[in-house]
Amino acid sequence: MEKVSVIKIGGNVIDDPKALKKFLKDFSSIKGKKVLIHGGGKLATRMAEQLGIEQQMNAGRRITDEETLKIVTMVYAGYINKNIVAQLQAIDCKSIGICGADANLIKAHKRKNAAVDYGYVGDVDNVKTKQLKKLIDAHDAIVIAPITHDGKGQLLNTNADTIAQETAQALSKSYKVQLVYCFEKPGVLLDAADDKSCIKKMNPSYFNFLVKEGAIYDGMLPKLQNAFHALEKGVDKVRIGQSNALKSLLKGQSGTTIKL
Amino acid sequence: MEKVSVIKIGGNVIDDPKALKKFLKDFSSIKGKKVLIHGGGKLATRMAEQLGIEQQMNAGRRITDEETLKIVTMVYAGYINKNIVAQLQAIDCKSIGICGADANLIKAHKRKNAAVDYGYVGDVDNVKTKQLKKLIDAHDAIVIAPITHDGKGQLLNTNADTIAQETAQALSKSYKVQLVYCFEKPGVLLDAADDKSCIKKMNPSYFNFLVKEGAIYDGMLPKLQNAFHALEKGVDKVRIGQSNALKSLLKGQSGTTIKL
Repeated sequence: MEKVSVIKIGGNVIDDPKALKKFLKDFSSIKGKKVLIHGGGKLATRMAEQLGIEQQMNAGRRITDEETLKIVTMVYAGYINKNIVAQLQAIDCKSIGICGADANLIKAHKRKNAAVDYGYVGDVDNVKTKQLKKLIDAHDAIVIAPITHDGKGQLLNTNADTIAQETAQALSKSYKVQLVYCFEKPGVLLDAADDKSCIKKMNPSYFNFLVKEGAIYDGMLPKLQNAFHALEKGVDKVRIGQSNALKSLLKGQSGTTIKL
Repeated sequence: MEKVSVIKIGGNVIDDPKALKKFLKDFSSIKGKKVLIHGGGKLATRMAEQLGIEQQMNAGRRITDEETLKIVTMVYAGYINKNIVAQLQAIDCKSIGICGADANLIKAHKRKNAAVDYGYVGDVDNVKTKQLKKLIDAHDAIVIAPITHDGKGQLLNTNADTIAQETAQALSKSYKVQLVYCFEKPGVLLDAADDKSCIKKMNPSYFNFLVKEGAIYDGMLPKLQNAFHALEKGVDKVRIGQSNALKSLLKGQSGTTIKL
């Protein structure tokens, strides 16, 4: 089975041109097919501030109103996506930049919640594996912005971690997939305050043990649950670590490797 | 030879949601493969104003400075491109939205001009026919935003009419191509002030005759010269007319049809 790496990066690397350049160089040197999913970064927030668009909140949660959707579509699917693609072409990584509306790739629905209206936020229904496979076969790399559509003409703002997970799961039917989450920490930490307490390997029984011990800190719990869900759906392994250490992360020499 | 329609729309249809919806419905009903090239519209200008970015002018020409490039990339390749794609999916026209950086499709260079520095404006070097063909074969329609790249990581703002022409020419090696320019007038007019004076058919000798007579008004002359250039490069026919009359325009029942 051919290998595919699905890698998600967040704001910490997107907002730092030097870090992004180094990351893209490492990314382009990965052997085999690759998918890069990028989150937003600070530009969208800065643009909204400059345009005087107030962040709408409801019960402590951020709302994607019409103006915010416009901005995230522009910034994520336009500015960030196209700049990443142009930089990849410059280092001979033939890539194509898309969002979930393109090629009808990722269909979602507006989040239904009786208590809170999150606005134009999409929960993923499905990833069209056939279309994705065609794109992967035709290009060195696919760069995906976290915007989906509802199939009725409406774009939706969608969590980039979720898009990475759903994409990896969809691809695992046809490829041996590793799903890589790059973030600001060196991996899953035993002690959230100590960067040196990185857990090298994790399997379900160790995860359950740590959960019982109360050793998994808040923000990490859903990330790990999603990781195990992806593995159960056929993803070969999940790695969590730092974008500036991508090469060693992919070799299992840094970060956390999660397997069943 | 399979037929491909390359259609360019401008701000007058992009800025009008109802007109755009009608246009996209007509566009999706065109038989055979299709490429849609969209210009900008007023949103980019409005965004620049709201962000307090002053339009830089030099010797009467608009300059694409760094901030303006950021805005046009966001608006053209992000907001407009993705909204068009989402609307096309909704009417079952399986499309993919890209810019010239994607798939390394359209390489350009920063315009060289000793007298005026136009900023980040790109003149097209080449269109990668092989990549374009792959995309065309894999999708019902390709939607192209007028942003190109220089192959060194730099995005460039590029004239949408030129992109349409270059794309049509590149495709004419493999397909029977009609190139369609939609604009606000019903076609090439004998009298610029009289919408009823539309010229139905034009060939090189009639064009030369009209030029000698001084009957071609200023803005139309380069458009027509480009049209004849495209025909000489292998494009089958060029049509010029109104976006709201796309169906009749494609049948030659409205607008101007230009052939060798």
